[in-house]
Amino acid sequence: MDMPKPSKHVFDAAIALAKRDDDTYTGHTSPAYGNMVGPFGGVIGATLLNAVMSHPALLGDPLSLTVHYAAPIADGDFTVHAKAVRTNRSTQHWFIELIQADEVAAFGTAVTAVRRDTWSATDANFPEVPPADGIKPAPAIPRAAWTSCYDMRFIDGGLDTPDTDGYPSQSRLWIRDEPPRPLDFLSLSAISDAFFPRIFVRRRTWVPIGTVALTTYFHADAAQLSAQGSSSLLGIARGLHFGKGFFDQSAEVWSADGALLAATHQVVYYKE
Amino acid sequence: MDMPKPSKHVFDAAIALAKRDDDTYTGHTSPAYGNMVGPFGGVIGATLLNAVMSHPALLGDPLSLTVHYAAPIADGDFTVHAKAVRTNRSTQHWFIELIQADEVAAFGTAVTAVRRDTWSATDANFPEVPPADGIKPAPAIPRAAWTSCYDMRFIDGGLDTPDTDGYPSQSRLWIRDEPPRPLDFLSLSAISDAFFPRIFVRRRTWVPIGTVALTTYFHADAAQLSAQGSSSLLGIARGLHFGKGFFDQSAEVWSADGALLAATHQVVYYKE
Repeated sequence: MDMPKPSKHVFDAAIALAKRDDDTYTGHTSPAYGNMVGPFGGVIGATLLNAVMSHPALLGDPLSLTVHYAAPIADGDFTVHAKAVRTNRSTQHWFIELIQADEVAAFGTAVTAVRRDTWSATDANFPEVPPADGIKPAPAIPRAAWTSCYDMRFIDGGLDTPDTDGYPSQSRLWIRDEPPRPLDFLSLSAISDAFFPRIFVRRRTWVPIGTVALTTYFHADAAQLSAQGSSSLLGIARGLHFGKGFFDQSAEVWSADGALLAATHQVVYYKE
Repeated sequence: MDMPKPSKHVFDAAIALAKRDDDTYTGHTSPAYGNMVGPFGGVIGATLLNAVMSHPALLGDPLSLTVHYAAPIADGDFTVHAKAVRTNRSTQHWFIELIQADEVAAFGTAVTAVRRDTWSATDANFPEVPPADGIKPAPAIPRAAWTSCYDMRFIDGGLDTPDTDGYPSQSRLWIRDEPPRPLDFLSLSAISDAFFPRIFVRRRTWVPIGTVALTTYFHADAAQLSAQGSSSLLGIARGLHFGKGFFDQSAEVWSADGALLAATHQVVYYKE
């Protein structure tokens, strides 16, 4: 008798691609990761990265990923084109497009690289914070379905608390996939876009927003990510400047034992 | 009698493009901005941005610029292709390629946007530092010609001083074009790449390095940049993590009166 096949994690289902040719893949949006308008951007970015990681010409592991959210993405099917623009001895540069209705709805660039052991140091500060276990998960936000796909435990800077540890647009939180899923580059790229828009924290009110472009730098290799299992990661996000309709925010994603796994930056449109 | 025509600033000569058609421009590298290997990356990024800003379809001002340094750039001619990937009501997304010998040597993405007055705030900290006037310019580095095209006055974290204000990879400096040139998006994009690789400051030694990809977010509009004239800007650059052959660094570029003009991030290859 056949054993029942384990069902696919909701994240893997959301970023799944079917290969049409080496450079071309098809996928579809996932209601589980719906946002207020269109899908959660982190899953779109992970889908673009998934095309790169599925490509037969891939060299090395992801080093950087830039995603442009060029237009609203409609619920339904899309096509992804991934092309190695330039391949060097140990680095490879990629251009990726997500097409809907014959137009580019999102696109991105990536660098993949073969990593080798070198001198290393971390200058960003790993903060002293209470462990995830002692903090209650924040409730999901009903109008943003994707928030129920993450377990988020706020140390400070949650949407319902005025405490931001003295930095007015900062949040610090433990975060992992819900249900738990072993960490890899794909889920880490999505988590890097899972920090609430800083203007919500800064102004303690909702305003219409939309991420315009995001860049993530990966500081871990596949083995280091795999070793995390499904543990909660520490995220620290801060806004830098808000003005003339756009703000930028930067975030760090740390392992519980103090390894900086990713640094991520984005520029976001806001109204008013 | 004709007045002598004022000669073009060395920066404008370096980023100059000749139009072939709306999407296609030609240019050439400038010895004045030579680096240890190939041209200074900041001038290449500014050249890509110049193609966008020269394009007849341009909407608004630069909001973000991502540049991939995909391969070494040889001294000599190149072609630049700039294409508006998607144009919305107030934002426009661009893809730009720099071609040499029929291969992509550098490429980038950009967002331009129509900026409107909104609520605004700056959460990044403008530090208390001595004014540029009281600090001696750092000597140019002979093997990096481009350094003589900037007036850099280090408050701390210079290459010849161990003081980094307690943050081991930080530099704070006043910087402007040399000779002085009125600030605009093009020169600001180049200045955003003019911070020495953090590993030189961190390790107090030279190692082979190369910027892989850079992203800059612009927080000012054209009028605000123009109002700066040729004043020195305050730059603050820090490394976050160094490991497995790559590090990332982030920098802020401030006006002397405390306006955050740009935030910039890059990932850099290093050997050993």
